[in-house]
Amino acid sequence: MTGYKRVALIGLGLIASSMAHAIRQHRLADEIVGHAKSAGTRETALEIRLVDRVCETAAEAVQGADLVVLCVPVGAMGAIAAEIAPHLEPGATVTDVGSVKQAVIAAVAPHLPGHVHFIPGHPLAGTEHSGPRSGFATLFVNRWWLLTPLEATPPEPVARLRGFLETLGANVDLMDAHRHDLVLAVVSHTPHLIAYTMVGVADHLRRVTHEEVIKYSASGFRDFTRIAASDPTMWRDVFLTNKEATLDILGRFTEELFILQRAIRMGDGDQLFDYFTRTRAIRRGIIEAGQDTAAPDFGRGGPERG
Amino acid sequence: MTGYKRVALIGLGLIASSMAHAIRQHRLADEIVGHAKSAGTRETALEIRLVDRVCETAAEAVQGADLVVLCVPVGAMGAIAAEIAPHLEPGATVTDVGSVKQAVIAAVAPHLPGHVHFIPGHPLAGTEHSGPRSGFATLFVNRWWLLTPLEATPPEPVARLRGFLETLGANVDLMDAHRHDLVLAVVSHTPHLIAYTMVGVADHLRRVTHEEVIKYSASGFRDFTRIAASDPTMWRDVFLTNKEATLDILGRFTEELFILQRAIRMGDGDQLFDYFTRTRAIRRGIIEAGQDTAAPDFGRGGPERG
Repeated sequence: MTGYKRVALIGLGLIASSMAHAIRQHRLADEIVGHAKSAGTRETALEIRLVDRVCETAAEAVQGADLVVLCVPVGAMGAIAAEIAPHLEPGATVTDVGSVKQAVIAAVAPHLPGHVHFIPGHPLAGTEHSGPRSGFATLFVNRWWLLTPLEATPPEPVARLRGFLETLGANVDLMDAHRHDLVLAVVSHTPHLIAYTMVGVADHLRRVTHEEVIKYSASGFRDFTRIAASDPTMWRDVFLTNKEATLDILGRFTEELFILQRAIRMGDGDQLFDYFTRTRAIRRGIIEAGQDTAAPDFGRGGPERG
Repeated sequence: MTGYKRVALIGLGLIASSMAHAIRQHRLADEIVGHAKSAGTRETALEIRLVDRVCETAAEAVQGADLVVLCVPVGAMGAIAAEIAPHLEPGATVTDVGSVKQAVIAAVAPHLPGHVHFIPGHPLAGTEHSGPRSGFATLFVNRWWLLTPLEATPPEPVARLRGFLETLGANVDLMDAHRHDLVLAVVSHTPHLIAYTMVGVADHLRRVTHEEVIKYSASGFRDFTRIAASDPTMWRDVFLTNKEATLDILGRFTEELFILQRAIRMGDGDQLFDYFTRTRAIRRGIIEAGQDTAAPDFGRGGPERG
């Protein structure tokens, strides 16, 4: 079977609410139970009937569940694991959706009893919105969902979780947690920090009025603001917990940037031209890999003349 | 009238070919004449009947034209202006589509005779593609086209050019050339340099294979590659000619980045959270200004969980 009897969603933000919709659509659980720390979020979840049952505590929510999904910020994972550990059903699978994997494993694994299977996970999917109303059933369709199982975990619960996630529409890959954190530092964490920084620079610039920055944002800057609008709590935790890899990539980024900055200052056009030509090849690779299309997108997210 | 008798397009890349399609669609000229330096580009233009007449030289192309549009890289503007100057029709309007305005004015204006009107311009529109086959008639629809007329230019030719560009679908704004270059350094030039740099970093990283970077690129990095795939010649010239403003904004960017980098290193979560919260407000402003929508875009260009 690809489903579970009872799925417990701990934390009811974008990912959990999208999972709830998708699980229902594909009939992947007999019951979906949910918990959120905030009373307001729990009320909203009840009001929109997001899940079958909303629990006051995480401990209550996980009772009798054969799949528990931790959908809280990375920094809150350890405390939640400690709270739910005594209440977990023997044989249950516990997974999470945190953007960093080594730190989550370090925070969660020591609390969990030997009779459950902890399979860390990370869906590479999202929007700039958060909260229980932001979810939709197709969020995971054709998106990657990375699993970083521990060595000791037997293959059966991993295969079962994989089948479940694939039914939600995701493409599942298994990888080592350390490598996950490095790859994500390159393709996601550092780009996000850079986007946040550039938007912050624009905000500080009093000589360029707020209005002009917004008005002409389509020229490249808009893509940065979209990235930089993501959930502040989640991103704070990402940088605090994937510190080593992010600082490594940031260091490399700064070195490269200084080389290009020097080329501009010295008027070295050949160096700039060669650099910009090389980066085109990566873009071509992404289009060939089917991760994007080459079609003009009429300003939706496309690059702009400057 | 909003059109011209004869429009001469000098340079036949994305912008010129899109203008040719749009001018035809809206019947904004009796004749469109084109010239490109490369014989291959001229052949392609002939083959696809991009314009009514393809000329071997820019000097020949501008003869009898009442609108001349310089669509060559910023670094080539001065030489083209010197070449066409003796052949310009009295009363003709000369405009350009360069991404930098002060440098273009400095390179072009001294060559032009007093009997023509030079009205520098810059359409904020583009795709990641270039060349005579890349154009399409709707490229400028609902996009900004900035004009930075000189003080001495009378209002009539400016109003006429403005009407022409608005008929192509653009929103036209007038602004000072110095301010243009600063605003564009913030909303376009620096974001492009940063995107090029980040893609370059990924390219150098041997520990993260090319394949993984491409495979998981949807997590933020893909937006950078799209920006970084733009025409290398054009962008080299942008940075060489808008050097002062770009270096200014880059300096501010580096300062900010170091502050965030230090916060990560020191584990200062409050500082990160406050910063990320502030940048959300700019994003909201862009949505309210109608420059983007808040709808989830299913991975097309949206921000990603990381």
